[in-house]
Amino acid sequence: MAATDYKFKGWNALDATAAEGKMVWREFEPKRWEENDVDIKITHAGICGSDIHTLRSGWGETAYPCVVGHEIVGTAVKVGSKVEGIKVGDRVGVGAQSDSCLGRFGDCEDCAAGDENYCDKVVGTYNSKHFNGDASQGGYATYHRSPSHFVIKIPDGVPSQEAAPMMCGGVTVYAPLKNYNVGPGMTVGIVGVGGLGHYGVKFASALGAKVVGISRKEAKRGEVLELGAADYIATDDNEDWVKKHYRSLDLIISTVASSKVPINDYFQLLKKKGNFVQVGIPEDGAMPIAVPSVVFGQKKFTGSLIGSPANLREMLELVARNNLRGMIQERPMKDANQAIVDLEAGKARYRYVLFNEDAA
Amino acid sequence: MAATDYKFKGWNALDATAAEGKMVWREFEPKRWEENDVDIKITHAGICGSDIHTLRSGWGETAYPCVVGHEIVGTAVKVGSKVEGIKVGDRVGVGAQSDSCLGRFGDCEDCAAGDENYCDKVVGTYNSKHFNGDASQGGYATYHRSPSHFVIKIPDGVPSQEAAPMMCGGVTVYAPLKNYNVGPGMTVGIVGVGGLGHYGVKFASALGAKVVGISRKEAKRGEVLELGAADYIATDDNEDWVKKHYRSLDLIISTVASSKVPINDYFQLLKKKGNFVQVGIPEDGAMPIAVPSVVFGQKKFTGSLIGSPANLREMLELVARNNLRGMIQERPMKDANQAIVDLEAGKARYRYVLFNEDAA
Repeated sequence: MAATDYKFKGWNALDATAAEGKMVWREFEPKRWEENDVDIKITHAGICGSDIHTLRSGWGETAYPCVVGHEIVGTAVKVGSKVEGIKVGDRVGVGAQSDSCLGRFGDCEDCAAGDENYCDKVVGTYNSKHFNGDASQGGYATYHRSPSHFVIKIPDGVPSQEAAPMMCGGVTVYAPLKNYNVGPGMTVGIVGVGGLGHYGVKFASALGAKVVGISRKEAKRGEVLELGAADYIATDDNEDWVKKHYRSLDLIISTVASSKVPINDYFQLLKKKGNFVQVGIPEDGAMPIAVPSVVFGQKKFTGSLIGSPANLREMLELVARNNLRGMIQERPMKDANQAIVDLEAGKARYRYVLFNEDAA
Repeated sequence: MAATDYKFKGWNALDATAAEGKMVWREFEPKRWEENDVDIKITHAGICGSDIHTLRSGWGETAYPCVVGHEIVGTAVKVGSKVEGIKVGDRVGVGAQSDSCLGRFGDCEDCAAGDENYCDKVVGTYNSKHFNGDASQGGYATYHRSPSHFVIKIPDGVPSQEAAPMMCGGVTVYAPLKNYNVGPGMTVGIVGVGGLGHYGVKFASALGAKVVGISRKEAKRGEVLELGAADYIATDDNEDWVKKHYRSLDLIISTVASSKVPINDYFQLLKKKGNFVQVGIPEDGAMPIAVPSVVFGQKKFTGSLIGSPANLREMLELVARNNLRGMIQERPMKDANQAIVDLEAGKARYRYVLFNEDAA
């Protein structure tokens, strides 16, 4: 309704070939303005594995045209009259979620409990429908419009390029660390030390836990210890790793989105009553959990999905307090197609962040 | 060492064909006597599905000759000098476990916590080795010898034939009910209403919970409601059962020892943060848990194995207090071979109990 003197332009996926680096730069229609919304002039947009899943319709048919990107940071340029706590000029971010029911259709135990990320009516930041019926469009773009409940202020001391990839990648590992009360005296295993896992190592360490990185190759050991891990397990290359690390971990977070992992061996690493938390959802099927894996030691298999607005705020405070930095590589927005091709080729160390050259 | 004026005779499995009803009645060697032991003149021995798994080497090669039976009730006829709390003439029972480390080889967090059933050094009541090196032999027999820590006094008001099948079948479902604090205001689903599940329905009801029985066929509905269930779901025959019962259960206990069940549909029945507890260990492989099943609603997959001595005592008190009775069928010890054949053929309604005619 309200006129804007800026255009929403972005990288549009028109079909599944977009995942091969064939997104098209053009104007797109944001959701229609409502007085709870915030418009953000995007400075940075992290590239998340989910973007590629969606570009290629890997999690079900994508609603093309679609602009992906759900690790968005920029400056609030327009703030609806019903918005509280955000003003024009604020540095803000949006993660993988744009909206939830927030009780507007009747009681919602998830939203009431501050678990908006588990609401049955989650609106994704892209490839989803807002409650007004409009398609949600993501952040490989010049501008982003989002309902304000999911627009998070970025604290001073957290650079925008650092905050962006934490809005999804970071909070996805932060939320279970928080949920399982990770702190001093605990030992946490992080399976897969990459785009998500390296945040797991850093955040769990910052929370005071001892961290054990778990990946396949011995060659990665130095890198993982440098991130702050106290120990490292190379499942392909170390002998007797199950026996050596038997019942040594209070919690395992697996960032590997695959069912083809030695999950029943991982369970042996958990202490009694420990939790194994899968983050992210494999495209390749169910996890084969052997019953003895959970029976002996009374262990549990569960999962975790992104994070709530409260998780995002807390994570960013932790980052500011401890001056944490991810391993990121910045690339100009114009190179988005090449960047997703490079990510798929496994070249990222560990997280690409697109930036708008004229907006920084 | 000490002479006995009685003989240990029982049904010996000599090879895997024993599972076809070819056990042989003959004398066997009990463990060598120690002053912590109790000798029991057996009056009743329940028949458990585990017996048949073991007879046919279904969980790995069985150490033949083997006398199965781990739902044992009878009279203490000899009590070691180091035994506390049991005297000759007491009515006592032994379940699936005969011993655990009890800290004798160093600290054991399981035994210290009263979770002896999860001790790494569990000694099974049959087909296992006692710490003195002797084979453990079960209760399809005239007498049984067991370390006293796992010999449980049967309260007045619980008939021996009722107590026997509860020593394994009953406590296997009682333990998770207890562990998840089942009581008034909770709704519990019991998957599979048979030898184990019918105890689940009765115990959960007695603890004050609302119980929903879950099985395949509509024909079973009346029987399950009669056991005390408030509702029943027939997964083969009822339409839209997932939708109708969506997020209605606080806890599910599955007594079906198979990985070929609609487990991801069952997860939809759990309320937020609910637990799915698998009891018993399928012979046919891992449970295929889809990650969304546990992510949405933050649910957990776990398992439970038999029960501790404390669980056994509490269960028997609950049974005495509420005058609970299982659905059992008594058969003379001499018919043990036919009874296991009948159990395999699915004829039991629901639990067979062997009795020694001269010992009752």
